[in-house]
Amino acid sequence: MKRIETLREKMAEEGVDLIVLAPGAHLGWLTGIRPHADERPLLFCVTAKDAGFLMPSLEAEDVRRQTDFPLFEWSDAEGPEGALEKMFETFSIQSARSIVIDEAMRADHAGLIQDRLLNAKRQFGESTLGALRARKDEDEYAKLKRNAQIADRAMQKAWDIMRLGMTELEVAAIVRDCFKEDDAVPLFTIIGAGGNGAMPHHHTGDTVLKEGDAVVMDIGAGRDGFSSDITRMAVIGTPPDGYLEVHAIVEAAVQAAMAVARPGVKAQVLDDAARKVITGAGYGEYFMHRLGHGMGVEVHEPPFISASSQSVLDENMVFSIEPGIYLPGRFGLRLEDIVIMRTDGPEILSSLPRDVQIIS
Amino acid sequence: MKRIETLREKMAEEGVDLIVLAPGAHLGWLTGIRPHADERPLLFCVTAKDAGFLMPSLEAEDVRRQTDFPLFEWSDAEGPEGALEKMFETFSIQSARSIVIDEAMRADHAGLIQDRLLNAKRQFGESTLGALRARKDEDEYAKLKRNAQIADRAMQKAWDIMRLGMTELEVAAIVRDCFKEDDAVPLFTIIGAGGNGAMPHHHTGDTVLKEGDAVVMDIGAGRDGFSSDITRMAVIGTPPDGYLEVHAIVEAAVQAAMAVARPGVKAQVLDDAARKVITGAGYGEYFMHRLGHGMGVEVHEPPFISASSQSVLDENMVFSIEPGIYLPGRFGLRLEDIVIMRTDGPEILSSLPRDVQIIS
Repeated sequence: MKRIETLREKMAEEGVDLIVLAPGAHLGWLTGIRPHADERPLLFCVTAKDAGFLMPSLEAEDVRRQTDFPLFEWSDAEGPEGALEKMFETFSIQSARSIVIDEAMRADHAGLIQDRLLNAKRQFGESTLGALRARKDEDEYAKLKRNAQIADRAMQKAWDIMRLGMTELEVAAIVRDCFKEDDAVPLFTIIGAGGNGAMPHHHTGDTVLKEGDAVVMDIGAGRDGFSSDITRMAVIGTPPDGYLEVHAIVEAAVQAAMAVARPGVKAQVLDDAARKVITGAGYGEYFMHRLGHGMGVEVHEPPFISASSQSVLDENMVFSIEPGIYLPGRFGLRLEDIVIMRTDGPEILSSLPRDVQIIS
Repeated sequence: MKRIETLREKMAEEGVDLIVLAPGAHLGWLTGIRPHADERPLLFCVTAKDAGFLMPSLEAEDVRRQTDFPLFEWSDAEGPEGALEKMFETFSIQSARSIVIDEAMRADHAGLIQDRLLNAKRQFGESTLGALRARKDEDEYAKLKRNAQIADRAMQKAWDIMRLGMTELEVAAIVRDCFKEDDAVPLFTIIGAGGNGAMPHHHTGDTVLKEGDAVVMDIGAGRDGFSSDITRMAVIGTPPDGYLEVHAIVEAAVQAAMAVARPGVKAQVLDDAARKVITGAGYGEYFMHRLGHGMGVEVHEPPFISASSQSVLDENMVFSIEPGIYLPGRFGLRLEDIVIMRTDGPEILSSLPRDVQIIS
């Protein structure tokens, strides 16, 4: 339980009396336990000295097989209030003054805690769990690197097979099947052809790939508790008007961000460097999202790389650099790499070049 | 937008000034819109007169294609606070006194609303959206009935193919493949053999089906925005000691609950009727969960059927009746049917008998 001890040091630093987590990424990272989650409150509480679960009876046997933490059980007939009260008494936290609530917790479960601790200052997990999760150890790096290699293979496979006349969904299916061959669970396979690519989170559909379509390919999968996330561009036949110029601008934006990325630099400096390139080229209004996001057990996690982000980048943080230009009705263009911050700058996890792939 | 008008009538009845929804079941049911959900606050606000979205710029084009509701956009660089303030001003709800927050909303997004409306009384959606969703119309009934038929076929297919020596996961794969043949997305395929069945939410795994194993089979899938959920029992060869007696008790509990289910009856009356049968037979402590849950666009939704539930059952409500007895180390036994409440009692959606299926 080394991670819980590290978390307690962080709690002491930050003056936090109590952390409450729901089933999900924080809890899985901290304890390895991934219980069934539904509308029944199942919460993990950590204090300076104690830790335990508020536990629906229904899930108790399953969780007990995985851990020695005390379980404060409640049945459907009783409801959770009594068991929660008992845990708070046992842990002497009825008067906690500063609490962290899992930001991904359901609002009604968070309400149960907050209504019970009305005088506590509430924050979310970014500066405690988020900060710890952001710095990857060697084992986590190895898993992320492997996931990146798997995604590279899926992207390459799609490039090899995709052709004029296929639908976006058919291309996505190639990617998904390739992920599955590598025991990775597909998480997203955004294929946006032509004008669809101008929506960064386009719903991949029945649109047929046509001559001259630029195709945004943003794919990721999960394996060994970590994930991949990469975006590359393909063009069917001859690139549309202006495409190659815009591709060069986005590539220059990626490189500008990479060039300023060093431990000790604020995340906003990277966003600024990439944005200046795109704005300077006259496309500023078409780059409407942040430059990137951290990645680990979740596809999106701290540090977030935006114009307002005060997060200071540190060694072993893993995050995306993914500028884009989206021209409504014409095409979208995004290039995304996941990097790990090393002493002397970012190391890219993927081995695929960011050049446009021409599908002939 | 008939559903929004119905919701506004309900808001007036309940004295609610503002409802705030996240991407998910409530929003999908109310508007048909299912936007991409991530850590960026994307919220739908409904007041007596207005309705609109707090919208990350990144998702705006996609949502605008689906709706005319006003979008209060915010970019990653700005953050959501300014756009939220603008929406609250436009809708004149800065001084809302009674608000409903989507219970499934992320805690940090709920915090954004609550911190802005500190003096408002906060509740969750059960008595407004939950109450409306609980009563199904004819179209919803038709979709649920079709889903039930699809699940019946998957269960029957598993019975036809499963045999001694297969693993739980292999049986689950039969079910999943059959669901997919019917264009239904598998949601859960809990296969619990022998002692594993004594955990109601067992993680289906590599356990091999042995002679004399009782096998809990709890399966469900989604199609047309609705889902199925059914539990039946199979036994490999000769039933274990005591099995047939316990099966008869659980069957009697199902029938006892069905017998008292009428419009106007409190949900707890059903739980009580089933529990009395099981307790009377000496197994009360081994039935540790509620009798059932509503089902519709979500697999679990109001009305919940528990010992403490004050919900009054009404015509066209759809819910499960699923008593169980779980004997640690021996076997678990649950029988579950989804019913729709009719004037004269419950109509079962499945056509499969609840008898144990002997696999020889």
